[in-house]
Amino acid sequence: MPKAAIVMGSKSDFPVVKKAIEIFKEFGINTEVRVLSAHRTPFEACQFALDAEKNGIDVIIGCAGKAAHLAGVLAANCVLPIIGLPIKSSTMDGLDSLLSTVQMPSGVPVATVAINGAENAALLAIQIMALKYPYLKDKLRAHKDNMRQKILSDDKALREELFKE
Amino acid sequence: MPKAAIVMGSKSDFPVVKKAIEIFKEFGINTEVRVLSAHRTPFEACQFALDAEKNGIDVIIGCAGKAAHLAGVLAANCVLPIIGLPIKSSTMDGLDSLLSTVQMPSGVPVATVAINGAENAALLAIQIMALKYPYLKDKLRAHKDNMRQKILSDDKALREELFKE
Amino acid sequence: MPKAAIVMGSKSDFPVVKKAIEIFKEFGINTEVRVLSAHRTPFEACQFALDAEKNGIDVIIGCAGKAAHLAGVLAANCVLPIIGLPIKSSTMDGLDSLLSTVQMPSGVPVATVAINGAENAALLAIQIMALKYPYLKDKLRAHKDNMRQKILSDDKALREELFKE
Amino acid sequence: MPKAAIVMGSKSDFPVVKKAIEIFKEFGINTEVRVLSAHRTPFEACQFALDAEKNGIDVIIGCAGKAAHLAGVLAANCVLPIIGLPIKSSTMDGLDSLLSTVQMPSGVPVATVAINGAENAALLAIQIMALKYPYLKDKLRAHKDNMRQKILSDDKALREELFKE
Amino acid sequence: MPKAAIVMGSKSDFPVVKKAIEIFKEFGINTEVRVLSAHRTPFEACQFALDAEKNGIDVIIGCAGKAAHLAGVLAANCVLPIIGLPIKSSTMDGLDSLLSTVQMPSGVPVATVAINGAENAALLAIQIMALKYPYLKDKLRAHKDNMRQKILSDDKALREELFKE
Amino acid sequence: MPKAAIVMGSKSDFPVVKKAIEIFKEFGINTEVRVLSAHRTPFEACQFALDAEKNGIDVIIGCAGKAAHLAGVLAANCVLPIIGLPIKSSTMDGLDSLLSTVQMPSGVPVATVAINGAENAALLAIQIMALKYPYLKDKLRAHKDNMRQKILSDDKALREELFKE
Amino acid sequence: MPKAAIVMGSKSDFPVVKKAIEIFKEFGINTEVRVLSAHRTPFEACQFALDAEKNGIDVIIGCAGKAAHLAGVLAANCVLPIIGLPIKSSTMDGLDSLLSTVQMPSGVPVATVAINGAENAALLAIQIMALKYPYLKDKLRAHKDNMRQKILSDDKALREELFKE
Amino acid sequence: MPKAAIVMGSKSDFPVVKKAIEIFKEFGINTEVRVLSAHRTPFEACQFALDAEKNGIDVIIGCAGKAAHLAGVLAANCVLPIIGLPIKSSTMDGLDSLLSTVQMPSGVPVATVAINGAENAALLAIQIMALKYPYLKDKLRAHKDNMRQKILSDDKALREELFKE
Repeated sequence: MPKAAIVMGSKSDFPVVKKAIEIFKEFGINTEVRVLSAHRTPFEACQFALDAEKNGIDVIIGCAGKAAHLAGVLAANCVLPIIGLPIKSSTMDGLDSLLSTVQMPSGVPVATVAINGAENAALLAIQIMALKYPYLKDKLRAHKDNMRQKILSDDKALREELFKE
Repeated sequence: MPKAAIVMGSKSDFPVVKKAIEIFKEFGINTEVRVLSAHRTPFEACQFALDAEKNGIDVIIGCAGKAAHLAGVLAANCVLPIIGLPIKSSTMDGLDSLLSTVQMPSGVPVATVAINGAENAALLAIQIMALKYPYLKDKLRAHKDNMRQKILSDDKALREELFKE
Repeated sequence: MPKAAIVMGSKSDFPVVKKAIEIFKEFGINTEVRVLSAHRTPFEACQFALDAEKNGIDVIIGCAGKAAHLAGVLAANCVLPIIGLPIKSSTMDGLDSLLSTVQMPSGVPVATVAINGAENAALLAIQIMALKYPYLKDKLRAHKDNMRQKILSDDKALREELFKE
Repeated sequence: MPKAAIVMGSKSDFPVVKKAIEIFKEFGINTEVRVLSAHRTPFEACQFALDAEKNGIDVIIGCAGKAAHLAGVLAANCVLPIIGLPIKSSTMDGLDSLLSTVQMPSGVPVATVAINGAENAALLAIQIMALKYPYLKDKLRAHKDNMRQKILSDDKALREELFKE
Repeated sequence: MPKAAIVMGSKSDFPVVKKAIEIFKEFGINTEVRVLSAHRTPFEACQFALDAEKNGIDVIIGCAGKAAHLAGVLAANCVLPIIGLPIKSSTMDGLDSLLSTVQMPSGVPVATVAINGAENAALLAIQIMALKYPYLKDKLRAHKDNMRQKILSDDKALREELFKE
Repeated sequence: MPKAAIVMGSKSDFPVVKKAIEIFKEFGINTEVRVLSAHRTPFEACQFALDAEKNGIDVIIGCAGKAAHLAGVLAANCVLPIIGLPIKSSTMDGLDSLLSTVQMPSGVPVATVAINGAENAALLAIQIMALKYPYLKDKLRAHKDNMRQKILSDDKALREELFKE
Repeated sequence: MPKAAIVMGSKSDFPVVKKAIEIFKEFGINTEVRVLSAHRTPFEACQFALDAEKNGIDVIIGCAGKAAHLAGVLAANCVLPIIGLPIKSSTMDGLDSLLSTVQMPSGVPVATVAINGAENAALLAIQIMALKYPYLKDKLRAHKDNMRQKILSDDKALREELFKE
Repeated sequence: MPKAAIVMGSKSDFPVVKKAIEIFKEFGINTEVRVLSAHRTPFEACQFALDAEKNGIDVIIGCAGKAAHLAGVLAANCVLPIIGLPIKSSTMDGLDSLLSTVQMPSGVPVATVAINGAENAALLAIQIMALKYPYLKDKLRAHKDNMRQKILSDDKALREELFKE
């Protein structure tokens, strides 16, 4: 069974991260959610990554703001794909989080998604797990089709509304 | 057998992209390399993504500069994991490529790596493919260990050199 | 009769886009308004551009935020002038949208206006359509003169108000 | 016959601007090229815009760097479509030129292209003039197809080269 | 008698500009306040600058946001010192206004102050006029001393307050 | 006789500053040139500003890079108009110098010119001194007219050159 | 007994600075808090730094916004470690304060912490004073352990909460 | 005896870091220089910080580029003062390194100096160590005075040179 982990650097990241948990629930992904800080619990953060593979985790999302090192710490300590979710904090509009997450040195990649893009972090994790669990591909296609239908129905509704005017 | 694709938006991206090809060769990954532009060959770029799964491709790296839409176009047209490699162009120091690649809207993730980070794009692709082909994990661990040994030997060499002085 | 299209990537862009619709109404421009996403309905977005010319459309405004690819997708699929309207989203203050829209590669221009500059997008479209429908030039001159009178009357009002003090 | 004007703020912009002249030549566009500065010859720059329409000009490209006001000055003084070409200068990597050109206030649009994007400025001008001179559409389609063939042949060449290795 | 002018590009700039008017009133400077737009009333803006010297104006403050060309237009049309006051608008946090105002090409300086720094624009104008009207220097010294006393009394008050705790 | 001072924070700024010295020479301005650092000779920098007025200096240009405090220090210690010339250093493309110079707090203005804009710093100083020494206005008008003639002759030369082709 | 000073450039910085005072209180550090402006009370600011050592101060935190010169002024006038705390002001999101504080020229370091990072400014000061007062190390270790326990308990609480759902 | 450590994330940082080593040598500081990467040798980097205090190290300089996590990792694992030296890499002009180093979360400070500011990193370390080893203060004062003399002699030389002209 596919298993993902979401690690956030602070519980204050939870409102953003929640959307990723919902997506995993929607796709039936076994999800481990943790609060572990690269800077305040460095040992636990490293250990989590070192143990992740033997704990059956397929992919990890690391969520952090400011000098966002969490995803990088996870990537340094295991060979699983690590997804970096930069969190917008009170200054710099998330640019600090984005650059701290995406500009990783050669050899230690972090798969970075948009600032506060929790939904995409989860969908990317599922796309990755679908390599191992092909049944997820159908679910992803259905999700993609739902989005498409949503846009098409927005399109229809807007046109009708404007036509009435 | 694992199969990756590298799609670049212009052949001028090749000097950067080459490093990813070398990593794939080193790991024995079957690699398809293409020049397809989101803006100059939109039909072919879409079609490539639509056909990718049935062509046995596991993961695609999309490489582009400036208003870098290529990875986004690929992500829009398939459910495979798409890795975005932002290429630094002659102005804006790669910030335009990075933001155009990473700031994807909800529902269509692109796994973005550092500006010009071709080596990391390939390593991330291999980490992803390792979910399906577990033997790659050993290779990734060996690669990680080589990096570690390289740093440790740099450390030793520098200390000896400074000691002599 | 002049015909413009406004395509927005998400119905959440409507509050910004509305101003462009009003300008077109004021100038008596036949306007087609659509919700079509470069990433969520890529086929429909491409098809819209491919059919635009035969549907009598003279110019298209593409409105999108974040990694704003919509105008670029439209420009890739037709030879009509495409106007890009970058929408400010919740992070990065619109810089991501602006760079994703304006920094197009050689060969595929997008005529970009200011972030959230819906009124200018519409006026630019009308200036363009005025090449084919010269009667629009008088309307544009009248609009320009109205703006001028507005400033001059603001100037007069402010001076009188400050004089009274 | 279609007629475009290119106005640059300084003759030092010529190496960038030249590419636009070549595109116009390739498309057989009658082109007036001028050096007129918004700040050093404000009267002449305004007068050029005021006279442009009666001089048979269909569209104007304004090219300038730093606090790039030239395109804005032209737009303030006529109702023709004005294309803004931001030139990268010795500091700020062109960001100053881009923002000075694109962030125009409501009522006075400038159709901005990429930093140093002279080729796109010319192609956009031609797309605009094609509304009045429909024969240009075929030329634009041919140009678009050439670009496509160029990418496809680059694609083929690269694949063959990599196959040989 | 010293005479300054304040020209704002839009009456919406008034809330920021007001502080400059107050400073001028405090220093007894004859002040002309105008709403004149570089883009919407280009003729009037140029004419204002051309006439400024013969109208007895010593220095002009040009206030504008976004692609802020107003101070540059004034500077292009007279040899009086022009102070540029960049106004923060709804996007880009004033960076666009700042760069459009300060990055003037060689030969046409604009004396730029901080984003929304209306008080400093007025004080700078007074420092400049003090070259011609030396009695202003004493007023400037008194103003500087008041600021100093204000800080010293804030310092004293805070220390007392913290001591009580 | 008009007297200006140019203070640079490091002798490495001289190649940029030189242009200002030349302008002053061209206009016959008595010029005092100094190397004084806000951070390495704080006492001397303050003292220079405190003595400036009694030494007959009319205006001071402060030139510095990185965390460019020099112009601010001068402005803090006298009521003369202080012109800030931000110098581009080896990183950050001059943005650090610009923001450190222009974003002064209320009460202590610095008249900031473009990054590396030494010529404009000198011209602004002369415009300011012209309030006290009106004969400088004619020189400024002549300089402005020379610039205009230079552009017009560049314009003529370019048109002739392009015509020959 | 360890003694720190906190100097803020304006009393409006107090809400941010307060957190540093609390940390010092928690660690039993003798703290002198001052309002002294680099630009409005330059003499007092310099004098404070010149006297700091003989007044028994071990380390100084300088807090300022915009063109934040305060920490630099302190560093220029003594050889104590100076910590720079950049304050976010109403524009530029603190980037101006950060660059003005951190980009100090060679020879005069300022130990810069995050924008609005008052807690870290105080903790850094304590880490520094711990070199002289080793008993502070135990307090720092306890503080570090508290943070760790706080994260671990947040982690536990979140997991329990999610489990219940 | 005072003892500092310099840890760089890659031996390619050595040309920048060298200047810090020279400063330490000049001040007679016992210096340990290491190459240890936060991402490629995470265990060794953590262990170095955990052992630093018992190895007699007083302060550590962490030098890294891009997503520069090294100083943060060191700060997470000990209570010594950690100085962060952001290294400019091939893209983003050092902004990524600066933000990744300075924007640390509450509780774990990094004392950040200018991009590539190796000399200041060393001087800051010595200022810090001077709390424990007061004899260093005299050396720091002498160094400060040398800088002052250097500027004053540059000032004198420049004035003489300009006078001759």
